[in-house]
Amino acid sequence: MAVGDDKLGELHPIPGFRLGTVSAGIKQPGRPDLVLMELGEAANTAVVFTRNAFCAAPVSVAREHLRACAGRPRYLLVNTGNANAGTGQEGMIAARACTEAVASLARVSAESVLPFSTGVIGEPLPVGLIQSAIPQAFEALVADGWADAASGIMTTDTRPKGHSLKFSADGKEYVITGIAKGAGMIRPNMATMLAYVATDMAVQPGQLHDLLAGAVDTTFNRITVDGDTSTNDACVFVATGAAGNEPVVDDTSKLYEPLRIALEEICLTLAQGLVRDGEGASKFVTVQVNGGRVEEECLDVAFTIAHSPLVKTALFASDPNWGRLLAAIGRAGVEDLDVNRIGLYLNDVLIASDGCRAPSYTEEQGVTAMTPEDIVVRVELNRGSASGTVWTTDFSYDYVRINAEYRS
Amino acid sequence: MAVGDDKLGELHPIPGFRLGTVSAGIKQPGRPDLVLMELGEAANTAVVFTRNAFCAAPVSVAREHLRACAGRPRYLLVNTGNANAGTGQEGMIAARACTEAVASLARVSAESVLPFSTGVIGEPLPVGLIQSAIPQAFEALVADGWADAASGIMTTDTRPKGHSLKFSADGKEYVITGIAKGAGMIRPNMATMLAYVATDMAVQPGQLHDLLAGAVDTTFNRITVDGDTSTNDACVFVATGAAGNEPVVDDTSKLYEPLRIALEEICLTLAQGLVRDGEGASKFVTVQVNGGRVEEECLDVAFTIAHSPLVKTALFASDPNWGRLLAAIGRAGVEDLDVNRIGLYLNDVLIASDGCRAPSYTEEQGVTAMTPEDIVVRVELNRGSASGTVWTTDFSYDYVRINAEYRS
Repeated sequence: MAVGDDKLGELHPIPGFRLGTVSAGIKQPGRPDLVLMELGEAANTAVVFTRNAFCAAPVSVAREHLRACAGRPRYLLVNTGNANAGTGQEGMIAARACTEAVASLARVSAESVLPFSTGVIGEPLPVGLIQSAIPQAFEALVADGWADAASGIMTTDTRPKGHSLKFSADGKEYVITGIAKGAGMIRPNMATMLAYVATDMAVQPGQLHDLLAGAVDTTFNRITVDGDTSTNDACVFVATGAAGNEPVVDDTSKLYEPLRIALEEICLTLAQGLVRDGEGASKFVTVQVNGGRVEEECLDVAFTIAHSPLVKTALFASDPNWGRLLAAIGRAGVEDLDVNRIGLYLNDVLIASDGCRAPSYTEEQGVTAMTPEDIVVRVELNRGSASGTVWTTDFSYDYVRINAEYRS
Repeated sequence: MAVGDDKLGELHPIPGFRLGTVSAGIKQPGRPDLVLMELGEAANTAVVFTRNAFCAAPVSVAREHLRACAGRPRYLLVNTGNANAGTGQEGMIAARACTEAVASLARVSAESVLPFSTGVIGEPLPVGLIQSAIPQAFEALVADGWADAASGIMTTDTRPKGHSLKFSADGKEYVITGIAKGAGMIRPNMATMLAYVATDMAVQPGQLHDLLAGAVDTTFNRITVDGDTSTNDACVFVATGAAGNEPVVDDTSKLYEPLRIALEEICLTLAQGLVRDGEGASKFVTVQVNGGRVEEECLDVAFTIAHSPLVKTALFASDPNWGRLLAAIGRAGVEDLDVNRIGLYLNDVLIASDGCRAPSYTEEQGVTAMTPEDIVVRVELNRGSASGTVWTTDFSYDYVRINAEYRS
């Protein structure tokens, strides 16, 4: 199940960036499961990796290689079907062997190849199958390969996710395109979230990393399906520099703000796409908290609501259960919270104020507000001017079924 | 559903403490729903209340009265069927009116009556029904009323919970008895956890509070069904002093350690009873984390496992899904965690070590370990000598059904 009917729109090619998607037969014969991405020599790359201490072997190797090549990798190799996670020392050897296979064909150093894996945890990576398919992946490299790659990195996603934009900066047109995969933060036995974004703008490495970290913080880090964080999560941002502009060095560049806005739009669309394709999702829920003293307390409240199984099951039932929402706000750990000043809204219907049900509120209004697939839960703390928003899904029978019956 | 077949054992009377359970007709005619507890003049009382900022009106009033009577209330009044939570200023007036009704009949001050409510959130407390039933509650007061009271405070609990002990201290026998109610931390629209424990030992007020806070910290604060905290939680500990001992003033008293141990056993049995009667529970799961640098990091890991919907759905499916357990450990936020030193056990079967599946482990062993209703998940961090244990349940279809379909 997934919320809405998101079709993949046009994904513009990025000069200096090619993608090749092939089938290595990792889990099912004939299914596209191996994606090679080739970056021009001028490209700079930044990556934000999972903070899970149990990170998968490819995450360790990619982090190591990114440092060794000083943020200028030439190839990204992504396989689906096997996460190469929970595989210990053997997993490290397997991940390195895959990068070496790419490196020897491309005549580059192994350190300029970053490996990414997603799929089943705890099973040995089929290195032989991947190595055999790499020559075909080179042959398949095309500039217009984004849509195929969006499908080629899927595991149990019900649909590919991608977004693309042309944007103007200082009188010139640039382009930015991204794809992502992931559904629960960890699918049944899956290691999940991967995102690849590229632009043709030239950006200096340090600035590239700051831009990516900023965009991830307000997009991918603000979504939650079940509160679990994968062992394999990675978000990659490549600036190929093919547009030939003077590289963006800091935020005083005229190109900085247009790029920041475009990147954030790409990341937000991809992140929300992951939530809409969340496990068993029947609702897309925006939790918006306003009027906090600082952003952090707004996010604490928003995530406490978004993670509450009681709130999530009520959302599944389209039940405007304001008691559970108030209880979640109350246990979010906000200091000196005056509950009598809080306003609680469902899709602009005031449901609670002064610590109890709003006098104007009727059950009928609540039921109407809960009916659409897209729901906004808005909390007004009325104690400051900070805000914070997160996006999540409901908790359905299908979530339990998908996660309980996966191996039966 | 509930785990196991816990029958209520013998609940010893506590000299200086009487209980009366009657039906006020709050939700259903004839159902016992009002419990009055009478404490002797010499009794000292300590209470630990919910930390939820959205605490219910009776919590605010009970806290205020406990201070006003200097920790020496004479009556506790508990109603089920209505939590008097999310009821704003009207709720405060209602809670006070109930305490005044008790006070005028007993000729004590209203401040020496503490109110407690559990049940539906957001509906006005039927003060008239409660006031009308209070005279009968006085008539019903008996020393042997613990079992009836255990049923009389239930909401959607499937069975009453109580525990009782005789224990020796400095050559004399004392007695301690407790009852509790609660299932999910908040049942559908319910405000949940209440516990009442009494002993005939004399204990000085400050020491009584420290003993209770210590016992709650290692028992009620270490259980979780769904991570949600109720607006009405309270745990009461009464020392009637009827045994006539020299009051326990501090931990140098010969009575201190026997009392501490007895109180902890009562609280632990009650707390585990709440988990075993958890919403939709089919497993009782002990999560034990050893070898941490400090207790706090052990508890962080244990609660991250216990709250993970992915772990909980795997437990429901009796699936030894070690990948999800490792991923939960990895995202618990423990600093410098060396994942290669961690040992992960299910009921003494080593399932993962060196960051991957243990070489000795077979799927058959894992399935066997997951079969019983009682399961121990043990994590050896191997970086220190601290430990921490929490208790939880699995996540089942029934959990979603109970919480989603409550109002339909």
